[in-house]
Amino acid sequence: MTKQELFENIQRKKSFLCVGLDTDVNKIPEHLFDETEDPIFEFNKAIIDATADLCVAYKPNLAFYESLGLEGWEVLERTVDYIRENYPDQFIIADAKRGDIGNTSAMYARTFFGNMEFDSVTVAPYMGEDSVSPFLTYEGKWVTLLALTSNKGALDFQFMRDADGEFLFEKVLKTSLKWGTDENMMYVVGATKAEMLTDIRAIIPEHFLLVPGVGAQGGSLADVAKFGLNSSCGLLVNSSRQIIYASDEKDYAKAARLEAEKVQTEMEFILKQADLI
Amino acid sequence: MTKQELFENIQRKKSFLCVGLDTDVNKIPEHLFDETEDPIFEFNKAIIDATADLCVAYKPNLAFYESLGLEGWEVLERTVDYIRENYPDQFIIADAKRGDIGNTSAMYARTFFGNMEFDSVTVAPYMGEDSVSPFLTYEGKWVTLLALTSNKGALDFQFMRDADGEFLFEKVLKTSLKWGTDENMMYVVGATKAEMLTDIRAIIPEHFLLVPGVGAQGGSLADVAKFGLNSSCGLLVNSSRQIIYASDEKDYAKAARLEAEKVQTEMEFILKQADLI
Repeated sequence: MTKQELFENIQRKKSFLCVGLDTDVNKIPEHLFDETEDPIFEFNKAIIDATADLCVAYKPNLAFYESLGLEGWEVLERTVDYIRENYPDQFIIADAKRGDIGNTSAMYARTFFGNMEFDSVTVAPYMGEDSVSPFLTYEGKWVTLLALTSNKGALDFQFMRDADGEFLFEKVLKTSLKWGTDENMMYVVGATKAEMLTDIRAIIPEHFLLVPGVGAQGGSLADVAKFGLNSSCGLLVNSSRQIIYASDEKDYAKAARLEAEKVQTEMEFILKQADLI
Repeated sequence: MTKQELFENIQRKKSFLCVGLDTDVNKIPEHLFDETEDPIFEFNKAIIDATADLCVAYKPNLAFYESLGLEGWEVLERTVDYIRENYPDQFIIADAKRGDIGNTSAMYARTFFGNMEFDSVTVAPYMGEDSVSPFLTYEGKWVTLLALTSNKGALDFQFMRDADGEFLFEKVLKTSLKWGTDENMMYVVGATKAEMLTDIRAIIPEHFLLVPGVGAQGGSLADVAKFGLNSSCGLLVNSSRQIIYASDEKDYAKAARLEAEKVQTEMEFILKQADLI
């Protein structure tokens, strides 16, 4: 998917919501285990069908699928295929936090872009350019590089300052600008301190940002938009648990839709205010 | 496995070799595809049987298995089971470079330590403490944390200096000392500049190091030992391609053994010189 296509999807759907498919076998409604042989896929399918017109992206979190072994990996593949076939305008991100030496990263790229039809993979920057560049050789595919994460541990290293006062996460942004473009790289930027987006936008004005940590984790969507929007929207805001676990009863898909609608409505207001729709 | 048990295995086998199982479907001998339905597992099994008395650890590289989809994941599981059942004294490292927010890292830990019987997982430090600590809650299991990697991209961020002149990889070592102990954490330290091990040993004198980049990639085993050995050996030196792809003919297992023997012989000499055996 091109950046322009992603922006057009955002305009058409009046939403820059990404729904995180962190499907946890211990959290999905119990009745699914009685009523179907395939509860995890059925859960994903119902969540996707209930939210696809309200969001522009889905982000399966690989850890949740891998923890189920072969069955989980197979459900992941079918989930990606299901989105691809039924909602081809969705941007699908493998939240995998991969990254290794060049020949190994090339294997991961083949997994997510060759064998499966993801649009992007989250990649950790610690090992530098050759751990990222193999993912950038696939036409129309994206790297979503970790810059500033929303967890407590982000403070351990990402805010290390060099002698000039530059943070590690800023160095990651600046250095990686040479590896790709705003057409094939976007960045994970946590929303816990939305005002930091001003400094981040000074470094990467044109890139898309994948923003976790809005809602349940405390960040404000209005603040993220205020400091982070650009002329192509430039934001994908992720929500996982707040949407997919809105109810653990039979109404879970309807409840997920209601939560997604709340977010989409706020996003529509924000996009209008910014003259982007 | 405890640190003491690992050291005893090293003493008994007179080796601190780790064999990397980077099994690439495009590099294994062609005759395997004609002679067996299960060429990848058969290759791993033959390599393991040929080298198990010469090494103390195996390190499957997850990317190579994931790139084969369900079949690859299944071969990985069977390979770990095969080692566990037949060579229970081997330390098995999932070279997965994982690391995510706490609840997600907990899922990865369950995958590698609960569902599969790995002894350790390689983890990337970028997201800090809560991305690592879930792996440390499993008794007898280890985190192998990336500190200084052996690839070119290591120069991009790992050598960033703070105002006091401390490198990022040194900060990773110092900070992570508070997360675990030398009984449940070891570090990836590339061998491209063996003399740097002196500074690293000043920070972590007692920990084991997993050292890639010896041999084919240019580092010297003698130099690594000179600067890196401690009173419990404290080194696992990895070799992958040089051993497992020593031949692409029918003699591949024998050729792998010969390569492993060369390394083990040098290691035995080193251990004797250091009065460790």
